Amino acid sequence: MYANLSLGALGLSADFPTAVELAARHGFAGVDPDVGYLAGLGDRAAIAEAAAAVAERGLRLGVAGLPVDLTAPAGEFTAQLAGLPDTLAVLSAAGVTSVGTWVRPMHDDLTYRRNWVLHVSRISLVAGVLADAGVRLGLEYVGPKTFWSTERFPFVHSLAEVRELIADTGAGNVGVILDSFHWFTAAETTADVAALADADIVSVDLNDAPEDRALDQQLDLDRRLPGTTGVIDLAGFVAGVRAAGYTGPVKVEPFMASLAEQPVDDVLADVSRRLHAAID
Amino acid sequence: MYANLSLGALGLSADFPTAVELAARHGFAGVDPDVGYLAGLGDRAAIAEAAAAVAERGLRLGVAGLPVDLTAPAGEFTAQLAGLPDTLAVLSAAGVTSVGTWVRPMHDDLTYRRNWVLHVSRISLVAGVLADAGVRLGLEYVGPKTFWSTERFPFVHSLAEVRELIADTGAGNVGVILDSFHWFTAAETTADVAALADADIVSVDLNDAPEDRALDQQLDLDRRLPGTTGVIDLAGFVAGVRAAGYTGPVKVEPFMASLAEQPVDDVLADVSRRLHAAID
Amino acid sequence: MYANLSLGALGLSADFPTAVELAARHGFAGVDPDVGYLAGLGDRAAIAEAAAAVAERGLRLGVAGLPVDLTAPAGEFTAQLAGLPDTLAVLSAAGVTSVGTWVRPMHDDLTYRRNWVLHVSRISLVAGVLADAGVRLGLEYVGPKTFWSTERFPFVHSLAEVRELIADTGAGNVGVILDSFHWFTAAETTADVAALADADIVSVDLNDAPEDRALDQQLDLDRRLPGTTGVIDLAGFVAGVRAAGYTGPVKVEPFMASLAEQPVDDVLADVSRRLHAAID
Amino acid sequence: MYANLSLGALGLSADFPTAVELAARHGFAGVDPDVGYLAGLGDRAAIAEAAAAVAERGLRLGVAGLPVDLTAPAGEFTAQLAGLPDTLAVLSAAGVTSVGTWVRPMHDDLTYRRNWVLHVSRISLVAGVLADAGVRLGLEYVGPKTFWSTERFPFVHSLAEVRELIADTGAGNVGVILDSFHWFTAAETTADVAALADADIVSVDLNDAPEDRALDQQLDLDRRLPGTTGVIDLAGFVAGVRAAGYTGPVKVEPFMASLAEQPVDDVLADVSRRLHAAID
Repeated sequence: MYANLSLGALGLSADFPTAVELAARHGFAGVDPDVGYLAGLGDRAAIAEAAAAVAERGLRLGVAGLPVDLTAPAGEFTAQLAGLPDTLAVLSAAGVTSVGTWVRPMHDDLTYRRNWVLHVSRISLVAGVLADAGVRLGLEYVGPKTFWSTERFPFVHSLAEVRELIADTGAGNVGVILDSFHWFTAAETTADVAALADADIVSVDLNDAPEDRALDQQLDLDRRLPGTTGVIDLAGFVAGVRAAGYTGPVKVEPFMASLAEQPVDDVLADVSRRLHAAID
Repeated sequence: MYANLSLGALGLSADFPTAVELAARHGFAGVDPDVGYLAGLGDRAAIAEAAAAVAERGLRLGVAGLPVDLTAPAGEFTAQLAGLPDTLAVLSAAGVTSVGTWVRPMHDDLTYRRNWVLHVSRISLVAGVLADAGVRLGLEYVGPKTFWSTERFPFVHSLAEVRELIADTGAGNVGVILDSFHWFTAAETTADVAALADADIVSVDLNDAPEDRALDQQLDLDRRLPGTTGVIDLAGFVAGVRAAGYTGPVKVEPFMASLAEQPVDDVLADVSRRLHAAID
Repeated sequence: MYANLSLGALGLSADFPTAVELAARHGFAGVDPDVGYLAGLGDRAAIAEAAAAVAERGLRLGVAGLPVDLTAPAGEFTAQLAGLPDTLAVLSAAGVTSVGTWVRPMHDDLTYRRNWVLHVSRISLVAGVLADAGVRLGLEYVGPKTFWSTERFPFVHSLAEVRELIADTGAGNVGVILDSFHWFTAAETTADVAALADADIVSVDLNDAPEDRALDQQLDLDRRLPGTTGVIDLAGFVAGVRAAGYTGPVKVEPFMASLAEQPVDDVLADVSRRLHAAID
Repeated sequence: MYANLSLGALGLSADFPTAVELAARHGFAGVDPDVGYLAGLGDRAAIAEAAAAVAERGLRLGVAGLPVDLTAPAGEFTAQLAGLPDTLAVLSAAGVTSVGTWVRPMHDDLTYRRNWVLHVSRISLVAGVLADAGVRLGLEYVGPKTFWSTERFPFVHSLAEVRELIADTGAGNVGVILDSFHWFTAAETTADVAALADADIVSVDLNDAPEDRALDQQLDLDRRLPGTTGVIDLAGFVAGVRAAGYTGPVKVEPFMASLAEQPVDDVLADVSRRLHAAID
């Protein structure tokens, strides 16, 4: 696994060349691609050149966002799906081989099984289109009870369930996005993660949790930088990821608005140090 | 539908002949069978005679409890299943044609889908044995969020889900046990109930809820006698049951320990009056 | 139900105005829409005008073909799906409210369950797009054993299975296309059809079968005009359709190349007479 | 893997001590247990003693038959299930750790999905009872089209399907019984078998097929001794089994009535030689 810089996941923003510069300066080994920027370069050759420049800085390109909303109304989903090949052409030109999205862990109208059919339907179709472009799809489950228990029908909110969901799609190019915060709130273990193979994992997020809340009270959008509080057993989580043989990107996504108020180099130096401390 | 007396559901107890006497005295049209008492009568003829005596008092026999724990370990479940024909022989002799149980709405180890396989497996087998004896199975779903959200994997906790579960068993002799308390806590409507047919409903419970709790804070074991607080729209619930063409027993199950401390005739007079007010 | 003219299903062809003229001349009560012709009229008003002209002849518009291949590779399917709204705009302008396709009853690579996921995925998505346009989808199952047994994994080839498939999509706008030939080769009964409701049936085909083949030897593409051989119990089939309360189009689809070699008016007079004899 | 003697699978019979003697004489490394014989020994100590005598002859005990009919009517199945612990006590005393049965590959009334629910229900329950006794269950799929195509609804008849079935039960103690004859008739490959692990396979059968029938015409009950005709690529099959790391018993089950008419020592010498030629 390697430390990856995702400015967006830190609540920061910069143009892509700046992001690359920052990633290199602070010792990250990868940076998330900026599809809008790459697409704006115009043609395939220009995109490939930009990607080559990233590689020359010693950086890999991480995971792009899936530009499709899995639970959108059918017409909207169909329109987004129809636009997917254009995005894939950009990703392909840049050599990006994975995209990710998350699974909404509840629904007010669809029972678990109806929602399952919706997700299997949508994911298998998206995965089919991605497979034609040689791209993998990562699915992130969302663990906090304060989230999955807020509508009438809870849905996938654990590693076990997202694995069942992926298996039921029958797709060979879909894997999990792990996040220590969801792993913690879902009450999962090192062994749960160690049971995965590298091919089962598309991306990994490392986060800690605030100390002043019980596990069932943790909020999805209020986390901490890894190693800050020690509430989450990051060593146990990373041990599982390591046992799985994971070789992909690891990033931080703390949902801390305060980061945007600090000097960006201070933030990235701290994040990089914490990431390397956790995974090296 | 008709008013049915279930002493157990009121937290009261009496031997079966007394229960029959109380039901008749207080204007109920049915009484729950007491399988232990009936079995103790010895032979089929004695049981049939006892049942005939109930009928002579103008009373029907309601629903017996299913003597099988659907989520017991395999060995235990198998043993209980093996004993089921003996119970069915008693029910058959007494002319009882339905039994009921409830669905535990969460599990700490089994995901929704694994738990679904467990329930479909167990229910379809039980239903097969019951069908041989001409007996229907009623399944009660349990609605309060304070219950289904307490373990890692929520399970069936709504009318829509229990209908899906019954359909997936493929059994023709399984229906729903409705309870206004679960209907209320599951945020269901008159139309949800009206969409059922008489054959889909095995039994109905009428309860009200305490006034000092928000819907999501209601507790499964703290309810009120029908019409006491008006928190639950019993008229809307009964309208749905009536629209479904329901012809079976209706009882009260308030989980109020205080009832056992009052004179039984006072309690039953009040319960009977409230039941008749709601369904007549 | 009403007699509907589908020239294509008879192996005949004519431009749409001629088809309308033929349908009126020979006593049909409906005619299949010609989407290509209608689309070629240019704008919504012109299409509506053409449809009004059909109505003025006393004819209804039947069922259009679904312009999406349910089992196409993901990229192809996605592209077809993206084009669906354009076709729906034409259908909507013409007042056509149903489209149909068939279910391929076997696969060489996908097991029954993998193929099920594929079909549920694709059908639920197509149905969602159709629902936005107020259009229903009819699915025809294909019964002959000489067809479903020819690849490694048989798939849906009976009314019971196509009903399960429709139910699993959860879509409210998908129904069955019945064909007496499939009903016969699937060894189904009047009661099987009578158990349907009008809303479950999108279209009905009436065909007979050759006399010189055993049931298991019947070939999907070699049928007979209704009432020719009496091999198929058309009275029993139609009795089921009538008991279901079916109100939609009934057509003939015999796959007899010889029809194209006869004078079209002779063919249509015969077909119309046979259809009316069967359903009036 | 090791050569195992199953007299029953050869259409022969002898009392258990004779079977043990024959197995040892002809160079087999294992022999199928005779549950009736063992049960007749009376108590646990006597059974253990008999098993020890087998071990002293250098022989392992193979796979016992599952004394439960997975597709029996519910009442019958329940009764058989209730008797299973008694059989398991005998197997446990003898140190036998696996039982096997087969999956009927078609049904005249149950669709694939209804039959799937039946099988998952029954298998998961049986597996639960077996697990309590530390016993594994092997499921044999049956490949010939002349079998699975003979009723209205084909069912599991391939390795891929039986693996899906096992996965859906969620049981950790259920595996496959492979038979080269079914592998051949299901048109499977070395890679299909090689994808298994030792823990996925409970038993292996080696058979050849007659030369005078096309693949789709092969009959389940007319096979040949391994290596007789060369119709089946036994080397390819065994290569897959070896790649899977299989460590269990391998037997022959040719359904050739002629074997019972030959001297038993001649038959067993030939079978042993063929088995060793194939797997050593």
